[in-house]
Amino acid sequence: MAETNLRVLLKRRPNGAPVPEDFEISAGPVPEPGEGEVLVRHRFVSLDPYMRGRMSDAKSYAKPVALGEVMEAAAVGEVIASRDPRFAPGDHVTNAFGWQQFSAVAGSRLIKVDPKEAPLSANVGVLGMPGLTAWVGLQDIGQPKSGETVVVSAASGAVGQVVGQIAKQRGARVVGIAGGQAKCDFIRTELGFDAAVDHRGDLNAQLDAACPDGIDVYWENVGGAVQEAVFPRFRDFGRMVMCGMISQYNEAPGADAKGAPAGPNLGPVVRKRLRIQGFIVSDSGWQRYGQFRSEMLDWIGNGKLHWREDVVEGIEKMPAAFIGLLKGANFGKLVVKVD
Amino acid sequence: MAETNLRVLLKRRPNGAPVPEDFEISAGPVPEPGEGEVLVRHRFVSLDPYMRGRMSDAKSYAKPVALGEVMEAAAVGEVIASRDPRFAPGDHVTNAFGWQQFSAVAGSRLIKVDPKEAPLSANVGVLGMPGLTAWVGLQDIGQPKSGETVVVSAASGAVGQVVGQIAKQRGARVVGIAGGQAKCDFIRTELGFDAAVDHRGDLNAQLDAACPDGIDVYWENVGGAVQEAVFPRFRDFGRMVMCGMISQYNEAPGADAKGAPAGPNLGPVVRKRLRIQGFIVSDSGWQRYGQFRSEMLDWIGNGKLHWREDVVEGIEKMPAAFIGLLKGANFGKLVVKVD
Repeated sequence: MAETNLRVLLKRRPNGAPVPEDFEISAGPVPEPGEGEVLVRHRFVSLDPYMRGRMSDAKSYAKPVALGEVMEAAAVGEVIASRDPRFAPGDHVTNAFGWQQFSAVAGSRLIKVDPKEAPLSANVGVLGMPGLTAWVGLQDIGQPKSGETVVVSAASGAVGQVVGQIAKQRGARVVGIAGGQAKCDFIRTELGFDAAVDHRGDLNAQLDAACPDGIDVYWENVGGAVQEAVFPRFRDFGRMVMCGMISQYNEAPGADAKGAPAGPNLGPVVRKRLRIQGFIVSDSGWQRYGQFRSEMLDWIGNGKLHWREDVVEGIEKMPAAFIGLLKGANFGKLVVKVD
Repeated sequence: MAETNLRVLLKRRPNGAPVPEDFEISAGPVPEPGEGEVLVRHRFVSLDPYMRGRMSDAKSYAKPVALGEVMEAAAVGEVIASRDPRFAPGDHVTNAFGWQQFSAVAGSRLIKVDPKEAPLSANVGVLGMPGLTAWVGLQDIGQPKSGETVVVSAASGAVGQVVGQIAKQRGARVVGIAGGQAKCDFIRTELGFDAAVDHRGDLNAQLDAACPDGIDVYWENVGGAVQEAVFPRFRDFGRMVMCGMISQYNEAPGADAKGAPAGPNLGPVVRKRLRIQGFIVSDSGWQRYGQFRSEMLDWIGNGKLHWREDVVEGIEKMPAAFIGLLKGANFGKLVVKVD
């Protein structure tokens, strides 16, 4: 093949917020699929906050990306050659990997998707890891009941959008926290959230108004000042779903080291019988992918699930787009069109 | 009856650590049992850290004791008159109430106990609320598995003693944290804990030695510096059973108000998939009292459950004993012999 594979390599470990110089755009050869592997031409590559963790060599739940290697990502694309009998050229697949245009992936790691069921890019968004994260975390930890108040931070983001809409399906009253008027309008009018709180405004006053009876479930995506404002508002038996704390991802040398910003005093956890629980969707979430996908496709088919994507075009824009993601510059699920 | 009922009244709400002047010793009449009530002569009255909360009018899970009223407590004693056909003079009962010598209690609130099964005072200790707390919290939240490392703070106290021994029954490796050499020796040699950490020494060095592979379950009774040292040592999927934080009970005006000491940064809750959960045994624990008591009596009968009591004699000593309890001055379950 005459084509090259444009890729983004991790050149050095970011010190605090990543900068463009931490990455290198590199043209490599299109990989040859080995026995049992499938060559995928990526159409959309996902950019997600967890990737900041992979750029650091601080101890975490997954190995860091090695320097000089292609950055990790989920992608969706088209099979162009296959050495796995289950896949043929023209098939669409997801969970191919990397900030790049092509990958050769073991067929056992791929999921075939039907582009007639949903737009291809949705497979790395509402139908992909972010959607599965929302579905698993709400089901296993948040467990919203009808009439309860659910607050979700980063509410217009990839995970937050889905969390709020699933909670609505379960009969909860949903309050989203987002940055700026446009995002707040979007979650109320397009996604049907009951109220929106702009974290650039007075958090306490807005939360007083939006959650007069307190909070039963808080979905934590951000940490920092938002967490501080939400925490005292839990009702008895409240649940705090710890999905991430993006406000800290650029803290060096890792937020469990000395010098990490303090968290809430845990006295109310006893008095209010709270549960604070963290999870990582990759632990066991994919084992329930079939049930998740079928439920989500039903909701999509019935017009009950909406989403917004922020689509960037071109591999070479990935570093800047990712840097913006950590600052909340995106509006909706960030995906990169790479073909 | 010519007898009087010596009682301890709450005279004023303590500001910080309680002082003797916050209480008043008062001789009242022995109460007359009403229809359906039972008159109990208390033998042992329990003193427990939760009572500090009842002295404050800060919002909490239970109502405060009103000024001028008898302080709340569990007690065990003998029926001397009964207007409930289920109880007769000479019966021994528990869950009678108050820092006093007598109470008239609705029979429906009493549990008959057999003094041949266990020493009477055990009914407000290992067989009472503190033991039930340990049993319920470990079963519902801690869920220690064989081979896991369980750390318990205030390990020689009423709840801690039982937590550690139940965890040992479940096959866990148990590390107790206590104040001073005598308590540390006691939990190792008398209770069979695997290791002891003296919180008056270098917590980090001792925890390094006692928990080389990290901590799976932490039973929180104390908060403060102990919590700060334990928290970073959780292993993946660790559980933190939030039973209490005695180090804060004297903080005014309540530890969820502004100015409460900060807690741990919650980043590790995501990365390590931790669960931090609070509970109050009175929510539903007594519904399982029968199963609890029978399991505990089996262990006692088989010599597998030991405990130490710190017995104070005389109603008039209750204020000083309680003040000491909040400072860790007691050694073992604090009970007051009042007959």
